[in-house]
Amino acid sequence: MTENTQILFKSRPTGWVDASHFEVAKGPVREPGPGEVQVRNIFMSLDPYMRGRMRDQKSYTPGFELGQVLQAGAVGEVTASNDPSLAKGDLVEGRLGWETYSVAKAGQVNKVDGNVASLSHYLGVLGMPSMTAWVGLRNIGQPKTGETVYVSAASGAVGQIAGQIAKLQGCHVAGSAGSDDKVAYVRDELGFDAAFNYKTAVSLGDGLAQACPNGIDVYFENVGGAMLDAVLLKLNPYARIVACGMISQYNLERPEGVRNLGTMVGNKIRMQGFIVSDHMDLKAAFMAEMSGWLAAGKVKYREDITQGIENAPAAFIGMLKGENFGKQIIQIGDPPA
Amino acid sequence: MTENTQILFKSRPTGWVDASHFEVAKGPVREPGPGEVQVRNIFMSLDPYMRGRMRDQKSYTPGFELGQVLQAGAVGEVTASNDPSLAKGDLVEGRLGWETYSVAKAGQVNKVDGNVASLSHYLGVLGMPSMTAWVGLRNIGQPKTGETVYVSAASGAVGQIAGQIAKLQGCHVAGSAGSDDKVAYVRDELGFDAAFNYKTAVSLGDGLAQACPNGIDVYFENVGGAMLDAVLLKLNPYARIVACGMISQYNLERPEGVRNLGTMVGNKIRMQGFIVSDHMDLKAAFMAEMSGWLAAGKVKYREDITQGIENAPAAFIGMLKGENFGKQIIQIGDPPA
Repeated sequence: MTENTQILFKSRPTGWVDASHFEVAKGPVREPGPGEVQVRNIFMSLDPYMRGRMRDQKSYTPGFELGQVLQAGAVGEVTASNDPSLAKGDLVEGRLGWETYSVAKAGQVNKVDGNVASLSHYLGVLGMPSMTAWVGLRNIGQPKTGETVYVSAASGAVGQIAGQIAKLQGCHVAGSAGSDDKVAYVRDELGFDAAFNYKTAVSLGDGLAQACPNGIDVYFENVGGAMLDAVLLKLNPYARIVACGMISQYNLERPEGVRNLGTMVGNKIRMQGFIVSDHMDLKAAFMAEMSGWLAAGKVKYREDITQGIENAPAAFIGMLKGENFGKQIIQIGDPPA
Repeated sequence: MTENTQILFKSRPTGWVDASHFEVAKGPVREPGPGEVQVRNIFMSLDPYMRGRMRDQKSYTPGFELGQVLQAGAVGEVTASNDPSLAKGDLVEGRLGWETYSVAKAGQVNKVDGNVASLSHYLGVLGMPSMTAWVGLRNIGQPKTGETVYVSAASGAVGQIAGQIAKLQGCHVAGSAGSDDKVAYVRDELGFDAAFNYKTAVSLGDGLAQACPNGIDVYFENVGGAMLDAVLLKLNPYARIVACGMISQYNLERPEGVRNLGTMVGNKIRMQGFIVSDHMDLKAAFMAEMSGWLAAGKVKYREDITQGIENAPAAFIGMLKGENFGKQIIQIGDPPA
């Protein structure tokens, strides 16, 4: 019988997540019941929102349960099926687990086409993070040609795409990231007009002023806290803040205070939160547009692939600290030959 | 020659405004030049936004100039006209000055009908503060029947109307104010479903929980700071924050930090600032609807009228501290017999 390696949620963090909050367990792979499929996971996605699911409070997705396997978006190969809709060898993506094999209801996974550059793309540029960027700009940011769009965490899973879409729409696009390599990447590889290292800038205000000489019309917010406070002082009248995430705050027991919200009144600013799963009616439109851009070389995407399910906790902790460079992926197994 | 009493802007406050920032000056009344009218001011409006105009930084209205007469919305009687559109004895409202007589371009004032209960209504329930409430709910809050609308500074110039409009739309309406008298007024006179004294509540969170047992769908934001932070934890998914003003922050050299903005992402909350002067295309619709409500007794309005232009600085300072009870008005002169 094949062995399953699983990462369980051992204890609830209050501040920074560390290795003690996880437990590696090994056991037999479960056989699928009626209507279920067994999936050999190949790639798994790690995303900042998962930190929210570690809290013991209501969030937009249910919290992780202590003692249970952690959940994640993953792509894998069906190894056994008890449902007529899927067959052994099919490739699927869906909300599966931090584990080498998952068992899920057939309706909870979607068949994917294996003829893409990498199956990992279904977790990034053709998946949830990329659609998050696409929906956030489409529904909230609504940038117009010539406007300035500023993206924080610009080399991250969502930020890369947000900035490139804004460029395709004829905007002045600026970004920030936490290392000179990341800054060079978004500017030189992705074609952002300007970028700065938020850790080494004279100040956030100075970095923003240099990168956005005409102020900011759309802020794609991935960071929160002090960055949001600095941006509020640079927004133009009628600016929009796409409140996608606030990763700088997730591990703080007490979030930073944002003091400059008063500017929202006089500058008639709109700030709006959203969750991509509310917008699944747009998935086909997103996939069509993004696949086209990807095929035409108009969009690039960088992934940071860590090998081995056992290394997922360390990669997750690193991601929350900004150590990843590009979309954080865990490779659990080999793609089909 | 008639004497003019004017309140000049003497020095710029950094924290709380006090009497030293104003100067009372007396001098001759200026005669109107070509296209101008001379107006004897009868009622003048004091509004929290004026504190913003005392700052030496860009705001949505130009800053007050040091050494010059302060500006305010006022209603008065034309005492001399050099423009064919207005005649001596006409009643007008417009942006005039903290003074007994103003001279303005004829096009900068609007003729008003003297057959209202009080000319002061043009500065409140039929004027800018009331239209602010009406526009904010209409364009941003968009409350639906059965939703909970919470209004801070509920007995103030804007808050009174915001709450009553929400009641007319079939909402559960809650408010807060800074004295038991004000709380009783909005609950017993204006018909709010619940209200609490934010100064004596166990905590803001507790006051909100009791007044809004089903959470908050629309927050009409007049206060900012700690109140906004507490509200963010009570908002329902898809809630809207009408960012009208943040009076609790205007006199602080360093605004309070708002820590709970992270809830905006998961709860898909929209917060939007606005300025009523952007929406003057809606003025006729507002006047028609509000006049109708007022005539039908469906809307009540409380004013706090201070006598004498010399007392305007003290009244302004008191208003920023929440000492007024209802819309703050200065009566400068007698209405026409």
